[in-house]
Amino acid sequence: MDKNSIIILKIGGNVIDNPPVLEAVLRDFASWQTPGILVHGGGKIAGKLMEKLGIVSKMVEGRRITDRETLDVVTMVYAGLINKNIVAALQSHACNAIGLTGADANLIPAVKRPVKDIDYGFVGDLNPDCISANVLTNLLENGLVPVMAPITHDGAGSLLNTNADTIASSVAVALAKTFRVQLVFCFEKRGVLRNPDDELSVIDFLNIPLFLKYKEENIITAGMIPKLDNAFSALNSGVDEVRICSPDNLTTGTIIKI
Amino acid sequence: MDKNSIIILKIGGNVIDNPPVLEAVLRDFASWQTPGILVHGGGKIAGKLMEKLGIVSKMVEGRRITDRETLDVVTMVYAGLINKNIVAALQSHACNAIGLTGADANLIPAVKRPVKDIDYGFVGDLNPDCISANVLTNLLENGLVPVMAPITHDGAGSLLNTNADTIASSVAVALAKTFRVQLVFCFEKRGVLRNPDDELSVIDFLNIPLFLKYKEENIITAGMIPKLDNAFSALNSGVDEVRICSPDNLTTGTIIKI
Repeated sequence: MDKNSIIILKIGGNVIDNPPVLEAVLRDFASWQTPGILVHGGGKIAGKLMEKLGIVSKMVEGRRITDRETLDVVTMVYAGLINKNIVAALQSHACNAIGLTGADANLIPAVKRPVKDIDYGFVGDLNPDCISANVLTNLLENGLVPVMAPITHDGAGSLLNTNADTIASSVAVALAKTFRVQLVFCFEKRGVLRNPDDELSVIDFLNIPLFLKYKEENIITAGMIPKLDNAFSALNSGVDEVRICSPDNLTTGTIIKI
Repeated sequence: MDKNSIIILKIGGNVIDNPPVLEAVLRDFASWQTPGILVHGGGKIAGKLMEKLGIVSKMVEGRRITDRETLDVVTMVYAGLINKNIVAALQSHACNAIGLTGADANLIPAVKRPVKDIDYGFVGDLNPDCISANVLTNLLENGLVPVMAPITHDGAGSLLNTNADTIASSVAVALAKTFRVQLVFCFEKRGVLRNPDDELSVIDFLNIPLFLKYKEENIITAGMIPKLDNAFSALNSGVDEVRICSPDNLTTGTIIKI
């Protein structure tokens, strides 16, 4: 039997920090006929709130540390302010959104990142095998649209700050067993560009041979490589298609297949 | 056929503002055999955060006004910090909690309080008939334990600050069509007291004739009357039993029936 389709859309700071763009993306997402899951990142609101509160982000070797105070702020901003305002906006577009963190319904049990050279604090690492895909499936079957904040938990009572790209691709992989999954990363460019200075130089299609070729030719360089490695890793784990696009056009961009 | 039982527990500031008491209540709640819904209020955290941020609560005739800045703070604190930490704590006690506001899954569509003498700002009034009892029932049937923050929405994209007692009793009434509902208000006293200065003078049982008698005898006075009116209103609308108790003993207190 053919699997049902589902689209997982990840939006980041470039969308969240720009209210008219966010509103347009949510309106667009709400109009899709294919069932969807929205995964959102954090943007700059948490940093601004920390500044107002006089909380100084601890940095170690250029990496931000999530201490207790930072965890409280990101929980408030990501799981509260951003998540619930997105839910209310989607509801106003007749999209039956339900806002969730990885703690809710034990959707994403994660592991506090082990301390090696750096103690990142309350940061969660996760494994797609641990995601409660059955709960998400049940919500989707009931016509609900999960909106996921980048917060998970350790199962022992602590919330954990977690990368939203990782949540999006892990949820995509977990659902690929049941659904035909399209994973869409909405970011600042219109797709993977041949020339980073030319917004119109979007590469329409990528697969592994083309990716290797473009890397060799230095057409695809440093900044995009981790994102594309992540995309191919999701595709290798069963995701049907990854797309990288900009908020002004969620239906074009670079299509990536194995 | 007999209805299945459900317990709706409302906890307020006296629990939320006291971490060891909150932890004990959550541990207790997680151990119950009867399915439950937890409704929490806000406590003092939002006020403290507003103070740190230099936001001055607007008061009109002694009543707090929820302006835009206040709404953002209560959304962060109630729906983010408090709700998600309760969910994570319940998960650590093997209770499959799912944190929700009234915007999520359109659980509680509310109405922004109409402006008469006072404009209360972003405050939601609600009607038990509007609650999406079927979504709550489906979550409960899937073994999930809803944890509800005192935030609703207007269906037009705005969140609304909403009284937690009202949410608890409205959810109780909405579910009374399907379930045998016990509504438990956990507050600072051990129950309704004969003598407010004597913690041990708990009235074990109240019904309407006793309530009228105690009011006449001035045994039950001002402070308790609105709470009990609210309780009898829920009972008149189908709730099976209301109980008023303190956090140190959730299974005793004053039992109220029609």
